[in-house]
Amino acid sequence: MDTTTSNLGLIGLGVMGSNLALNLNDKGYSLSVYNRTYSLTEQFMQEHAQGRAIRSAETLSEFVNQLDSPRIVLLMITAGHGVDAVIEQLLPLLNPNDIIIDGGNSNYKDTSRRWKELTEKEGILFVGMGISGGEEGARHGPSMMPGGAVEAWPEIRNIFQKAAAQVDGEACCQWLGEGGSGHYVKMVHNGIEYGDMQLIAEACHLMQHALGMDFDAMADTFAAWNKGKLESYLIEITSEILRHKDVDGSALVTKILDRAGQKGTGLWTAQDALEHAVPLTLVTEAVHARMLSARKDERVAAAKLLGGLAEPVSAEQHQAYLEAIHDALYAAKLVSYAQGFMLMQTAAQEYGWNLAYGDIALLWRAGCIIRSRFLGDIKASFAREPVPQSLLQDPFFIGELKRSEAGWRKTVALAVMQGVPAPALSAALSFYDGYRCAAGSANILQAQRDYFGAHTYQRTDRDPALAFHTHWNGDGSEEQMA
Amino acid sequence: MDTTTSNLGLIGLGVMGSNLALNLNDKGYSLSVYNRTYSLTEQFMQEHAQGRAIRSAETLSEFVNQLDSPRIVLLMITAGHGVDAVIEQLLPLLNPNDIIIDGGNSNYKDTSRRWKELTEKEGILFVGMGISGGEEGARHGPSMMPGGAVEAWPEIRNIFQKAAAQVDGEACCQWLGEGGSGHYVKMVHNGIEYGDMQLIAEACHLMQHALGMDFDAMADTFAAWNKGKLESYLIEITSEILRHKDVDGSALVTKILDRAGQKGTGLWTAQDALEHAVPLTLVTEAVHARMLSARKDERVAAAKLLGGLAEPVSAEQHQAYLEAIHDALYAAKLVSYAQGFMLMQTAAQEYGWNLAYGDIALLWRAGCIIRSRFLGDIKASFAREPVPQSLLQDPFFIGELKRSEAGWRKTVALAVMQGVPAPALSAALSFYDGYRCAAGSANILQAQRDYFGAHTYQRTDRDPALAFHTHWNGDGSEEQMA
Repeated sequence: MDTTTSNLGLIGLGVMGSNLALNLNDKGYSLSVYNRTYSLTEQFMQEHAQGRAIRSAETLSEFVNQLDSPRIVLLMITAGHGVDAVIEQLLPLLNPNDIIIDGGNSNYKDTSRRWKELTEKEGILFVGMGISGGEEGARHGPSMMPGGAVEAWPEIRNIFQKAAAQVDGEACCQWLGEGGSGHYVKMVHNGIEYGDMQLIAEACHLMQHALGMDFDAMADTFAAWNKGKLESYLIEITSEILRHKDVDGSALVTKILDRAGQKGTGLWTAQDALEHAVPLTLVTEAVHARMLSARKDERVAAAKLLGGLAEPVSAEQHQAYLEAIHDALYAAKLVSYAQGFMLMQTAAQEYGWNLAYGDIALLWRAGCIIRSRFLGDIKASFAREPVPQSLLQDPFFIGELKRSEAGWRKTVALAVMQGVPAPALSAALSFYDGYRCAAGSANILQAQRDYFGAHTYQRTDRDPALAFHTHWNGDGSEEQMA
Repeated sequence: MDTTTSNLGLIGLGVMGSNLALNLNDKGYSLSVYNRTYSLTEQFMQEHAQGRAIRSAETLSEFVNQLDSPRIVLLMITAGHGVDAVIEQLLPLLNPNDIIIDGGNSNYKDTSRRWKELTEKEGILFVGMGISGGEEGARHGPSMMPGGAVEAWPEIRNIFQKAAAQVDGEACCQWLGEGGSGHYVKMVHNGIEYGDMQLIAEACHLMQHALGMDFDAMADTFAAWNKGKLESYLIEITSEILRHKDVDGSALVTKILDRAGQKGTGLWTAQDALEHAVPLTLVTEAVHARMLSARKDERVAAAKLLGGLAEPVSAEQHQAYLEAIHDALYAAKLVSYAQGFMLMQTAAQEYGWNLAYGDIALLWRAGCIIRSRFLGDIKASFAREPVPQSLLQDPFFIGELKRSEAGWRKTVALAVMQGVPAPALSAALSFYDGYRCAAGSANILQAQRDYFGAHTYQRTDRDPALAFHTHWNGDGSEEQMA
């Protein structure tokens, strides 16, 4: 252990914090670590820090005094009031231009608030950095999404880009933008993760119940898909999950209760989409599906009353249906990412963030739960000149959608006719059909609203700034309003 | 004009307020009216109040002094801070046990807060009363949803039950419960209204594009449906809307821009469902559909790139498809109401409201936008002993769902194969299939979450209080957690 100062300090030695500390130290950085409960610090030092340039501190002032200037303090603590409390304790110990990085799962609105307060009042450079990849990622290379005080970036860039996952020579850690944009992008990542998981679960359910496949055959299918354009971490682990046997030799998944937990970030994403008027239908259906899954007893009772599934289709049709399900998964996933980027673009405009969308695709490319080959294609889309209005209007993806469309429709029709719930696959298709609908059915809504509430409507053949009201119940005439 | 006091006072002479004043006066009640802008009061008195027991006041104190004790003050003003402002001005002029009724479209959380503050601090009986039915309803009999200080109910019951719509000898105004429950029920009403409208719009779109029908034939279909179990105000006006001609003789709806407005209560409902973990999928899809409709320019551009609809089915198949669409509309509507009542039941439990669900169905039965024959069947369900856990588990509705199911699946499959967006019809079916799924696909989600995040899972063959974690990546063993 050297006696000079540490390159950076890390507060919070939970699973994510301690693994990230070791990762950062592996990459050549000396650290000081602090944890509110000192016994945890001692345990960490004893078990993991022997012979490493990691020193511990029992008090925050001791911790802060160990750090190089400007000080870099990385918080790896549970989101919420605890973050505010630690910041408050740190402030008297820090100088202007010291850097605080919140690496937890904070709500981006809290991050924006903290960034604003610390910038204005204290001159502290505050960074909100979403980190994805779980324990493994933290230890060997996570995906990191920093945003906030851009002046901090030159000071922390090398450190975190070295610790991050790498892909094609680039780090999965790029500066995202102002305020809470880093945690915002992490939130959307988590929402998309909910969607990806739900799509895979629906594909499994279709294989099991509409096709009547066994779990090893399903595992083989996912393993094969993981060699193609669906290649991704979640497809890979699903194959392993489906193949995993319980002690009695049966597939373990048949013993796992179908009641899904939520930690809230998927919910946040769905709520945020509503707040910003973005139709994030797929992620929202994924969140709703988890909520329905929680009503297990009610579903069991309902199943007895409302009957079950149709007979599976014959084995000769499996190959064709599996190709269709593959295409459905791919196309629906594309819709989900298009919706996610639509949300980020809308929020960025509202909050005045200048988000680097291509970099977002890059830094999700490895290290995080939704990592996939597909994100390389998304990155390429944002490199075009001009950038398409939506991924759904990108030439590459248009081709992919057109190629997948027949299988997608076949898959959703299969779910519909067999009675297998496929809310996310279906919602994606409804959205796609609504999105490519130049003249949708909202004219009927507008007419109804004008009929019962005199809410007025616009006309397709007149200046859209003009509002019209028809006296539906009276003489039927139309009136041009102010 | 007599010189004694008035039975009640009304503040806010906008469209709803002035019509409700006349309605209340028609039913035999004398009123004092007040409006912040006095010229509006003068105009109302001159145009509408001649020879009526309605008196005006130029100041709030004059207004309050005109009222019988305990005073009944009905606020018909725009929701928001204005409500707080008027209440604050009223307080010094009122006595304990005087009654303030907020008849506007307030957010129920504001109503709960005001009810709590006024009850605790001032002894004022505060009632939040949702009112539906638009201008016509206000004038001749709206649906009214009062909740808050129950001690106010005996004082106001006769007044508002006389002014309300009547159905089968019962008033569409029943006491709902504590706090903000009246405005809560009104909010859910509006969310359901969004859903009903969206379902009808999708049915129209299918008729127009998947069947290739003309608007008069569509109008005839809705008129016929309005004689059967779909009988409702929205079906009735849709028929009239579809038949309505523009000056050039074409159907007016073809000239109405397909970009739907929102006043926010549907959005509130979708947000509230997420907050309470209730899968209100249909209303949420309806809200999302309006959001997508607002992206008109993007849709027009996408339509050119992503192609359009399939050829309509042949005319010989129309009759069978129309029957299917009828059944789909009916079944999806049932799902939507089941979701809406699920939401109210969940919220009521959380907030400690003892909601009268049968009365809710009754008071939506007439006067309001979603009035329909169907609500009589819902009321009957809540009269059963015991009340079914959900409308989807009610014996009558089980029969209806079973009868409708084939047509519903046929309709959604038609939309899927023809490329006509039907997000609400589809979401309802996905929900139905998920709801009757005793063993859903969330076991896959739980396995994934345990794989990448060690979030643990429950087992179907063990006490659900126990949590398990499998070392997926390690020796594959399973560990029982704390």
